Amino acid sequence: MIQHPDAHRAPDLQPALIGLDWGTSALRAYLLDGDGNVIERRSRPWGIQHLPAGGYAEAFETVAGDWRGRWPDLPVVAAGMVGSRTGWREVPYVECPADAHAIAAGIVPFESECGRIHLVPGLLQGGPAPDVMRGEETQIVGALARDPALATSALVVLPGTHCKWARVQDGCVTGFTTYLTGELFAMLRDHSIVGRPARDATIGTAASRAVAFRRGLAVARASGAAGIAGKLFTTRSLFLCGDLAAADTLDYLSGLLVGEELRSVLATLGGPCPPCVLVGEPTLCDRYRDACAVFGIERVRSLDETGPLGLWQIARAAGLVAARHPPAMEATRRG
Amino acid sequence: MIQHPDAHRAPDLQPALIGLDWGTSALRAYLLDGDGNVIERRSRPWGIQHLPAGGYAEAFETVAGDWRGRWPDLPVVAAGMVGSRTGWREVPYVECPADAHAIAAGIVPFESECGRIHLVPGLLQGGPAPDVMRGEETQIVGALARDPALATSALVVLPGTHCKWARVQDGCVTGFTTYLTGELFAMLRDHSIVGRPARDATIGTAASRAVAFRRGLAVARASGAAGIAGKLFTTRSLFLCGDLAAADTLDYLSGLLVGEELRSVLATLGGPCPPCVLVGEPTLCDRYRDACAVFGIERVRSLDETGPLGLWQIARAAGLVAARHPPAMEATRRG
Repeated sequence: MIQHPDAHRAPDLQPALIGLDWGTSALRAYLLDGDGNVIERRSRPWGIQHLPAGGYAEAFETVAGDWRGRWPDLPVVAAGMVGSRTGWREVPYVECPADAHAIAAGIVPFESECGRIHLVPGLLQGGPAPDVMRGEETQIVGALARDPALATSALVVLPGTHCKWARVQDGCVTGFTTYLTGELFAMLRDHSIVGRPARDATIGTAASRAVAFRRGLAVARASGAAGIAGKLFTTRSLFLCGDLAAADTLDYLSGLLVGEELRSVLATLGGPCPPCVLVGEPTLCDRYRDACAVFGIERVRSLDETGPLGLWQIARAAGLVAARHPPAMEATRRG
Repeated sequence: MIQHPDAHRAPDLQPALIGLDWGTSALRAYLLDGDGNVIERRSRPWGIQHLPAGGYAEAFETVAGDWRGRWPDLPVVAAGMVGSRTGWREVPYVECPADAHAIAAGIVPFESECGRIHLVPGLLQGGPAPDVMRGEETQIVGALARDPALATSALVVLPGTHCKWARVQDGCVTGFTTYLTGELFAMLRDHSIVGRPARDATIGTAASRAVAFRRGLAVARASGAAGIAGKLFTTRSLFLCGDLAAADTLDYLSGLLVGEELRSVLATLGGPCPPCVLVGEPTLCDRYRDACAVFGIERVRSLDETGPLGLWQIARAAGLVAARHPPAMEATRRG
């Protein structure tokens, strides 16, 4: 894994790379310098399921066309669902275990109507219970570059609609598991009987919501091997019995679901939990950090916006950006 | 628990009771004789959330008005969500443990614009993880009357949108747990990424669907204490990897969810499983019976339409219908 030489260095304003994090719901574009620092960032709600009228090409031109016009030789690297079967161009998955170099080796250069774009592959975990990711592999590479101590052994957790728990060993993603926690929460809130009380209520106070969230976590933890299948309905029955305010039911439900995720992860590990790093939106990471504490997971840190550095690391490993600090950068390279 | 004297007796066509099973999605009306046999049955899709323009009164008049006109002295008993907070008139829950007599003691006579209606209470399981049911208590009473051997010790399972597992001991419902399995399945099918492949596919063959269902059950069983939280996404990833046909994904998902329910029930029991009786729609009960076999639950029988007999038993316990066969009927009555 290539180490980011100096994350605190001021950007030198000499662009070296255009990086795109192009997922299901958003397109994020970064102009990066030769050390992986962000010179400029832009974002549009143009995920691959919400493209503007002109499709991928118009989205790209609007977000990054002026960068490309001014620096026509800059390489462009794009990660995420843009490389999926329903994306701009499908890129085969790279199989685990995989590090930044293996991911870089799977890059597919794509001659689009906007010029060449290097599409980053997603990761595949094979076997009887296969799993896939697209975009998160780049955030993981960025996280390990930001905190190289994690590369030895860590769980990289990316909370969200589909939360990914990736196992990292010696700089490689060795495997990962997807939890539908965020999607389950949204479905139960919007379509289920357990979400109904909250639909007619104003939201609770920060304090009562935090209590309800921790209460859900505690119920999930206490459920032991049975899990929360038989506890989901308590979101409604506690309300019916006057023991949970309608305004707090959704936070209780969130606690049940996040708690079930942690309970399941710990049961799968079956042993001590390696250091965890939460990667993503700070408010959501804080929620997971609180949940980890309830479940006795103590070595947890949070990182935000690791995608740009991940794009840069992968571009570096692919030889798309020049090595300006070769000795330092190669120091932690595997094998 | 009062025993049904002779279920195989031919109806004598002398009505003794009008029974209503009035739930969220349907209204079922039964004309019953003095032994609890069904003389006539009617059904309309007028659950309490789908009432006709004239509301409860019009629904009742349309379904049972002619019975009431012809036999004005017949008592009317109604069970289900009609007695809930959002029903015709709220009836307080009766707390577990409860048998037919305790349920009958909680009946609330309600003077409606259509005459007196005896509303059957639902059951409440108190404590830190409360649970509630309305309507299922009547089906359970009917099931125990149909097969009195179950009254000693049994699990009565009522599959459906909200599957109830009721623990029965010495004729009493001692407690129960609600599983949202049916609702989770419908939500995941209609709103989630794991339901998407099936939305564009024609449904699989009976054979391939059965295989996919058992495969989902096997994955749930093998998940052990971790449960299926980290396996739900395999519904999609197996499809993406070409290892599961889009047409079979929903049956695989159903297997995962029903399997998680059984896994959770067995983990909660922590010991040998008492005899199980599945009560409900035969196709759904067959599915659960197959699932029980995969999980090693062997003593399972199925019963259909136990509601009418339950209504009759509860009316009998409330003294609303005369005892025509006192000695036989009282033989198994508790203490």
